Amino acid sequence: MAQEYLPVLEELISNFKRLPGIGHKTAVRMAFSVLDFTNEEAADFAAAIVSAKERITPCTVCGNISEGGICEICSDSRRDKSIICVVEDSRAVLALEKVREFKGLYHVLGGTISPMDGIGPEQLNIKSLISRLEGVDEVIIATNPTIEGETTAMYISRLIKPLGVKTTRLAYGVPVGGDLEYSDEVTLFRAIEGRRDI
Amino acid sequence: MAQEYLPVLEELISNFKRLPGIGHKTAVRMAFSVLDFTNEEAADFAAAIVSAKERITPCTVCGNISEGGICEICSDSRRDKSIICVVEDSRAVLALEKVREFKGLYHVLGGTISPMDGIGPEQLNIKSLISRLEGVDEVIIATNPTIEGETTAMYISRLIKPLGVKTTRLAYGVPVGGDLEYSDEVTLFRAIEGRRDI
Repeated sequence: MAQEYLPVLEELISNFKRLPGIGHKTAVRMAFSVLDFTNEEAADFAAAIVSAKERITPCTVCGNISEGGICEICSDSRRDKSIICVVEDSRAVLALEKVREFKGLYHVLGGTISPMDGIGPEQLNIKSLISRLEGVDEVIIATNPTIEGETTAMYISRLIKPLGVKTTRLAYGVPVGGDLEYSDEVTLFRAIEGRRDI
Repeated sequence: MAQEYLPVLEELISNFKRLPGIGHKTAVRMAFSVLDFTNEEAADFAAAIVSAKERITPCTVCGNISEGGICEICSDSRRDKSIICVVEDSRAVLALEKVREFKGLYHVLGGTISPMDGIGPEQLNIKSLISRLEGVDEVIIATNPTIEGETTAMYISRLIKPLGVKTTRLAYGVPVGGDLEYSDEVTLFRAIEGRRDI
């Protein structure tokens, strides 16, 4: 057999491989499963991809995903406008919203400062954050606890503090339900450092 | 937040969940990754789904996937037409083709007999197999070694044997590179039963 797959199937496989965490074997399995779809299912799937991409745009205020214009959170009058939680991406907004604890607004950076990938502060939504600080009492910097997330948090806090806005960072420590034995040293160090009276 | 995701994103997530082995979390991750695609990439992805589904049809001879009409294997004059390997699906054809050992033709059943799922012999490409047996010396039944695969193999062999065609089944045993310790009892039983002189 000269070729491994039909070109049209190969094309679909390589598209599935663009998805996060999808290797060759899984992509092949997915491509074959599409052949088992009905024509309608395949058309629906294709349409869902295109319309998600077309209709979802960043919120003009906070950068969170939104179906055109201003996102649900920014347009919700019950949210506390005096506190802004800064996150890397919309996934983090969803994760925090699930907790139902935070009632303020968000600001989505769209990534982290990462010189290795050529991403500097000017590629992130940092300017728009600064321009939103009028009337804001506290900015919680909730970037991920990675080197890039830390660097970004540090950078932003240095910009904000001189403006007289309280700047906080999420607490580090052993995850609830986690096992000390399996926690890495840096996490344990932070957990000890951040210990609290009981 | 009243809803968990934007409806248009929810729609994309539920489409990804139709793919094999994709749970909610992975589907969410995939849907978000699509938002990071360029418009062109998203359009390509959507087009690949539709055209794979539209252009790939079963080979009119063997049932293997094909871009219209007769598949590459059936139309290859160098293949040995006296031997047919019966498999459950096109994935099995690709797996066997990789070995480059088998030079005959295939016959793709399109599944296995499975009364639980309401699939009887008449739902499978069995009639078309029988009609291909003119000039065929051997039929290798290479359905998977599962209960359904066995049942189907048994059913087909009972149909074919009376026609005077040699019927064989793939060998069972411990997989090469596998560890006896981790082989299940049925496999070990078959491995002992099928032992050969060395």
